[in-house]
Amino acid sequence: MDAVGPDFSKGAAWMAGEIVPIADAKISVLDWGLTHSDITYDVVHVWDGVFFRMDDYLDRFFESIAKLHLDVPQTRSEMREILHAIVARSGLQRSYVSLVASRGVPGIPGSRDPRDCINHFYAWCVPFVWVFTEEMVARGVKLMVPDFVQRIAPEAVDPTAKNYHWGDFTQGLIAAKQAHYDNTVLVDTNGNVTEGPGFNIFMVKDGIVRTPRRGMLEGITRRTAIEMCAACGIECVEEDVLLAEMMEADEVFATTTGGGVVAVVQMNERVFSNGVAGPVTSQLSQLYWNWHEDPKFIQPVNYQVSGE
Amino acid sequence: MDAVGPDFSKGAAWMAGEIVPIADAKISVLDWGLTHSDITYDVVHVWDGVFFRMDDYLDRFFESIAKLHLDVPQTRSEMREILHAIVARSGLQRSYVSLVASRGVPGIPGSRDPRDCINHFYAWCVPFVWVFTEEMVARGVKLMVPDFVQRIAPEAVDPTAKNYHWGDFTQGLIAAKQAHYDNTVLVDTNGNVTEGPGFNIFMVKDGIVRTPRRGMLEGITRRTAIEMCAACGIECVEEDVLLAEMMEADEVFATTTGGGVVAVVQMNERVFSNGVAGPVTSQLSQLYWNWHEDPKFIQPVNYQVSGE
Ligand SMILES: Cc1ncc(COP(=O)(O)O)c(C=O)c1O
Ligand SMILES: Cc1ncc(COP(=O)(O)O)c(C=O)c1O
Repeated sequence: MDAVGPDFSKGAAWMAGEIVPIADAKISVLDWGLTHSDITYDVVHVWDGVFFRMDDYLDRFFESIAKLHLDVPQTRSEMREILHAIVARSGLQRSYVSLVASRGVPGIPGSRDPRDCINHFYAWCVPFVWVFTEEMVARGVKLMVPDFVQRIAPEAVDPTAKNYHWGDFTQGLIAAKQAHYDNTVLVDTNGNVTEGPGFNIFMVKDGIVRTPRRGMLEGITRRTAIEMCAACGIECVEEDVLLAEMMEADEVFATTTGGGVVAVVQMNERVFSNGVAGPVTSQLSQLYWNWHEDPKFIQPVNYQVSGE
Repeated sequence: MDAVGPDFSKGAAWMAGEIVPIADAKISVLDWGLTHSDITYDVVHVWDGVFFRMDDYLDRFFESIAKLHLDVPQTRSEMREILHAIVARSGLQRSYVSLVASRGVPGIPGSRDPRDCINHFYAWCVPFVWVFTEEMVARGVKLMVPDFVQRIAPEAVDPTAKNYHWGDFTQGLIAAKQAHYDNTVLVDTNGNVTEGPGFNIFMVKDGIVRTPRRGMLEGITRRTAIEMCAACGIECVEEDVLLAEMMEADEVFATTTGGGVVAVVQMNERVFSNGVAGPVTSQLSQLYWNWHEDPKFIQPVNYQVSGE
């Protein structure tokens, strides 16, 4: 990414049956997806011309739709076609591709009954988005865990249904940036680590990998990391992780569709693995990109379809 | 409201300096106001050609903007002019008027730093929206307090900064509608009553009025109710109210810009005041509309301005 960022104008979207340039992809200011954040989404990526684990992302997307009691007319195979078509139209070889299902607006104007709303699906793609900039990844990521904000509890909003409720993250992120950290991770009401805006979090201690088990999105990259640990013979446990425990880690890393497995070298004042990526993190990070060549996980973009 | 609802096509919006029909009021699918619900808003109403307490709503809007670390270029007096202009353009005598401030999109494409975003303001108006339909108001409102979802905690998202994080409300609302209730009210993690989607909640017991003090939006109608109690010599206390306590109330009522003071005649299985509006509720409800003729609170819409 250069100083002015990638060329987002190349992005394309599928809106109400048509493929349009990203600049024309808009929704009504009355849409409950906006006014009630009554919306779910997923993000799959294209890397060097191939979709990675597309069906796993689609599974999660349909689960999120069901959890929110949404109902969109498109089938899974129609969605798959739409994703191919927008990426083909954009011509992007590395892309951040978003699927969205929104409550919409009520068919009866002024109604406050969700059952009156006309739910709808749309999708868009832009150049690949790095959750951590390449510069941050190169020198290792520094995270702030703020003490004045907690992650939205699963008793209020189910974090396993991928959602846009990011008010907690945004407050943490602004504080982190002000204090010259790169990003933020939030704890829950019991002091357990949860996740950050766009990523899950792992720790390594005495060769054992641990990651939180609840209060966060079940990331596809998190799952990939767990599977990679199994493939490498590394023990990996999903369980509650207190912030105090994570502070004693040998290594910490983040996982995200927006960049894979990324070394975290600092949390608050604490520096991990002497400020560089530790061995487990490096191994998994490398393997993550190698798996992008494994036919089991990839599906080449059909750049031939015109999309209409 | 008739069977098909009011004519929303009459609505107007101010978007990026222009007044447009509501059907053309749209925002980018990339706007963080949508993708991170990184947005705040307020709603002021026009009743029979006058704005009610407009400056109090504007005060709250600017406080919300500050709490979210947003910064929009419009001044308070410009916003006031914009609101007059859109209502004038719509011609609506009774209107639900929304002011919105959004994070926008980063000036550097792909950036995940909120400080890179170009914040923006917009506004729109539609026919007056009743949070409870006239039919519900006439027979008294029935609320469900679900036991499987809690209000988002103030430690996660500050409810006093008016926001679109409604995932908790929506789950409660869907369950309520399925069980043939009209709407929902949520409790916090300690079992205290908080608020519902678009309204605050009050109880009356032995002549004393009580309403929650934290974990909810400080509604302008809530404030009006508190002021009306003072004007009528009724004792009114802001304090934690356990759901169990509210269940013992003589009367319960809701307050909202979308309809004023509204009798709640049932919560879960419990019926209040024999299923009709109690005396305190009726008195305050009546006075609320009377205050719409008090010059202290109203500002006539300037229907003469062309708005451009
Ligand atoms: C809140 C949150 N947690 C975790 C993740 C990581 O999930 P995934 O690996 O599927 O990208 C994301 C992805 O955007 C997220 O938004
Ligand atoms: C969550 C919530 N609580 C309470 C209220 C009532 O506030 P007001 O009286 O200012 O309309 C609203 C109004 O929309 C609201 O959204």
